[in-house]
Amino acid sequence: MNPVTRVERALRRALSLLEEEDVPSPTLLRKAVRDAVLQGGGRLRPALTLAVSASCGDTRPWLAEDFGAAVELVHCASLVHDDLPCFDDAAMRRGLPSIHRAYGEPIAVLAGDELIVLAFEVIARSGEPRAAAQLISILARGVRSPRGIIAGQAWESETSAPPELYRRAKTASLFEAAACGGAAAAGADPRSWRAFATKIGDAYQIADDILDVQSTPWAVGKPVGQDDLLGRPNAVKQHGAEEAHALLRATLQDALSSIPPCESPAPVEAWVERVSWRIEETLRLSVEHRKVG
Amino acid sequence: MNPVTRVERALRRALSLLEEEDVPSPTLLRKAVRDAVLQGGGRLRPALTLAVSASCGDTRPWLAEDFGAAVELVHCASLVHDDLPCFDDAAMRRGLPSIHRAYGEPIAVLAGDELIVLAFEVIARSGEPRAAAQLISILARGVRSPRGIIAGQAWESETSAPPELYRRAKTASLFEAAACGGAAAAGADPRSWRAFATKIGDAYQIADDILDVQSTPWAVGKPVGQDDLLGRPNAVKQHGAEEAHALLRATLQDALSSIPPCESPAPVEAWVERVSWRIEETLRLSVEHRKVG
Repeated sequence: MNPVTRVERALRRALSLLEEEDVPSPTLLRKAVRDAVLQGGGRLRPALTLAVSASCGDTRPWLAEDFGAAVELVHCASLVHDDLPCFDDAAMRRGLPSIHRAYGEPIAVLAGDELIVLAFEVIARSGEPRAAAQLISILARGVRSPRGIIAGQAWESETSAPPELYRRAKTASLFEAAACGGAAAAGADPRSWRAFATKIGDAYQIADDILDVQSTPWAVGKPVGQDDLLGRPNAVKQHGAEEAHALLRATLQDALSSIPPCESPAPVEAWVERVSWRIEETLRLSVEHRKVG
Repeated sequence: MNPVTRVERALRRALSLLEEEDVPSPTLLRKAVRDAVLQGGGRLRPALTLAVSASCGDTRPWLAEDFGAAVELVHCASLVHDDLPCFDDAAMRRGLPSIHRAYGEPIAVLAGDELIVLAFEVIARSGEPRAAAQLISILARGVRSPRGIIAGQAWESETSAPPELYRRAKTASLFEAAACGGAAAAGADPRSWRAFATKIGDAYQIADDILDVQSTPWAVGKPVGQDDLLGRPNAVKQHGAEEAHALLRATLQDALSSIPPCESPAPVEAWVERVSWRIEETLRLSVEHRKVG
């Protein structure tokens, strides 16, 4: 079964925990949570989890699926909360109205909360208690202070932030969790994957910066030019477009050279290739769309 | 060691996970999270966990402490998010400015998120993987849809809500989790405590209704009259004050009669007595305060 299908199936399995036959659910919250998870999304992080697990021998594929789903649920939660009026006030996400625009702000806050709870529960229910405890710690580290995405977002409320730490926390941390969790799910040492994971996180942040400057809302399904608007650091603004592209290529190359000894690097290499292709494709579509528009 | 001291110690142990010597934390988030947890609070729910664990033989007291802390962290998260402008817009909590008033709305959203993550991580790190997996499911059930506090809050965004289900989800569910988790932490069957736990949750909801009508902000440390203001169901409005008090006494009595066979009911009985005393004391203080004011 292809990785994206496995991820989608794991996500639907997770969402089914929110339904009990004899107990009705509040409808708006139910719809908001489903929309936040099921309306598209590249599933890059869970695909990375599956790729690393495969490279490590894939001894417990179901555990990698559950962990990948958990990472994606937390990622979706962060998008819902980051889109709120008090943060980016984004009207659009994945080409559709953002959750608070579609369902109201209270439901958006609650949907994010529910997705966080669900993420940790999914891991706990994997049927591998010892591995689950380790995987929950790995995920929590990528989400909370001082290294995770919540801390990354919180640095934006400070008058000054250590730039490297801010960038790492904001985006790299969840990629790190995704990769290290994939290793742990297969019984490998997650620490040996940290160098690779950090480089992948860095690459993603550079790619995100490039897309924010060079793509169109139509191609990425969300507003662009946000870094400029909100005064956030951006690699293109900092180094120029050409240098940013070179930096992205070099960082991805660095990541590939940081793959630790494992059963087979091929699945992880394929994931890196797929991500590179996806970035180029989005930029190509943006250029074409600009020509047409 | 007395239960409140044990709970406070477990909460501080949990908060220390957010600090790493060589990685700075965003200051406002750090302060907000600590304020949300450490500025008072009756610790009723974790004390219930410890009491049920004690009644069940207290075979793993440290696990009951960690679970109790986790329940309290989720409770604190729910207070921070419920106080947000898009919900109750409460300026005050526990006699102090609410988190979003003190630190801004973005930090309040993030602080709630961080507390949810921490709650689940604390259980996972308890060193009892098998029990941790069970306890995480128990906590998740009390927090997410369709039965937990998130669903309870979400019913307020619907045009109509099943009254019984709404009340149960909104407040009883976390008491249920606290009690059932205490049993599970001691290796007892959590299901045998569900009837007791549900009645305690019901009693707490009635008490909360009474305090919302009859107490003062000074005595409860938060705004009162909120149910009336926000058009929410309230037992005093529904049955009259005298009947609501009678109902509270009867429900607590019911709870006591629902204590399942266990090693010793005394710790749980003492908890019920303490809660009853606390409600009466708050009402007494409110009456005195009204006389003075």
